[in-house]
Amino acid sequence: MSLCFGKCKSVLITGSSRGLGLQMVKDLAKSSDRPATIIATARNPTASTDLQELSKTYPGVHTVTLDVVSQRSISLALEEVRSIVGSEGLNCLINNAAINICTTIDTVTADAMMKSFQSNTVAPLFITKAFLPLLQTAAAQSTGMGIHRAAVINISSSLGSIKCNWGDGAAYKSYDYRASKAALNMVTRCLATDLESDGILCMSLHPGWVKTDMGGPDAALTVEESVSGVLAVIASLTDKDHGGFKNYSGNNLPW
Amino acid sequence: MSLCFGKCKSVLITGSSRGLGLQMVKDLAKSSDRPATIIATARNPTASTDLQELSKTYPGVHTVTLDVVSQRSISLALEEVRSIVGSEGLNCLINNAAINICTTIDTVTADAMMKSFQSNTVAPLFITKAFLPLLQTAAAQSTGMGIHRAAVINISSSLGSIKCNWGDGAAYKSYDYRASKAALNMVTRCLATDLESDGILCMSLHPGWVKTDMGGPDAALTVEESVSGVLAVIASLTDKDHGGFKNYSGNNLPW
Repeated sequence: MSLCFGKCKSVLITGSSRGLGLQMVKDLAKSSDRPATIIATARNPTASTDLQELSKTYPGVHTVTLDVVSQRSISLALEEVRSIVGSEGLNCLINNAAINICTTIDTVTADAMMKSFQSNTVAPLFITKAFLPLLQTAAAQSTGMGIHRAAVINISSSLGSIKCNWGDGAAYKSYDYRASKAALNMVTRCLATDLESDGILCMSLHPGWVKTDMGGPDAALTVEESVSGVLAVIASLTDKDHGGFKNYSGNNLPW
Repeated sequence: MSLCFGKCKSVLITGSSRGLGLQMVKDLAKSSDRPATIIATARNPTASTDLQELSKTYPGVHTVTLDVVSQRSISLALEEVRSIVGSEGLNCLINNAAINICTTIDTVTADAMMKSFQSNTVAPLFITKAFLPLLQTAAAQSTGMGIHRAAVINISSSLGSIKCNWGDGAAYKSYDYRASKAALNMVTRCLATDLESDGILCMSLHPGWVKTDMGGPDAALTVEESVSGVLAVIASLTDKDHGGFKNYSGNNLPW
């Protein structure tokens, strides 16, 4: 299996103890054209036998503890990642960790809204801010835009598309998830503007509706199908995709 | 001055001690074709000499204490408003109160992001939820869609347009404000879907860049110009505007 990820020396994935994050680590680790360094972060990576197995089996797979909503945890992870990637910096940051409390107009609480904003919007922003020096280090060593240089991929959702939340597209209810993913898309756009001069590509990516703990058993895609598309899209990103919102098939989504 | 607001018996405006909110109360109170009941809410309405003056001078102008980020304050205000509007319910809720901490990539903090989400996104949602029984009471007494029946107007901003945050449109920086207003637009869309069967119109409205404490002295519009447009748009709303995003001139904005 080849993913054309070899031009990317290092990738970091948050929320990689299960679901999409774990599958991304698996696919990248097994690929014949893979990043030399794969950093799988999770709140408690030692508790994930899958992650431990991968890091033992495949060279260059590192597990790092990262609780995305803790600034102290982010700082500790940064130092660990800095020593792993060294002077080459970090090429690709995939902000994948997220929650969905799945609240309707009847069940939504202020606490649920705030928790989702914290995990799904604020955390990706502050992780990107923290790892920015490492992304800048990698970006300074290349030209153009894409994962061969430096990229921030925010795993968003078509449920965060305000335009699509209408008619049939509004059938799925989750005030907290939808609002936090729309806000994440705005953060993607702010970061894209601010990091363009550094040569760091930023974009939002919808992985599809996937059979994970979050997506449930009725979802349209297997984890394998989704991640195969997601990694192909990330591998092929160019300056044309900077500041954009794409799905796992590479099609553009409306905001 | 006539605003064609007479078909709307009651309107409630949050954040009305200054800026756009105060001007809305002024213009409505002075109009020859006005709502009989104008409810001006603010954190501390007794401290606003302007509001006190308006409520003494014009009949049917009520001031009610409402701290939009306090669920207890919302509950107390609801009981007060219920006794003011009685069996006719509330025709028009204008969620106007908002903050802008105005953070750049260098100055943004998790606290600033969370505070703006709380005031600009979560508060309008929970005020709408709290006042829903009064809006439903008004809606049950009429047909069609518009302020003659029941409407929720979320004062948003073109800065909350994810699409517009690019090129020249990205010059103004505020991670907290932009993300919270994009999230508010998603809440508008969720509410529009959920309240349609009740006959309650929901929409987002951009008042323009206005010379207020928030907009600053270099802004393009006077408060009078903005509010004149905002009230004209609200007065003319029909089912075609349900779930939409318009500016003070009545033009549609992209999400």
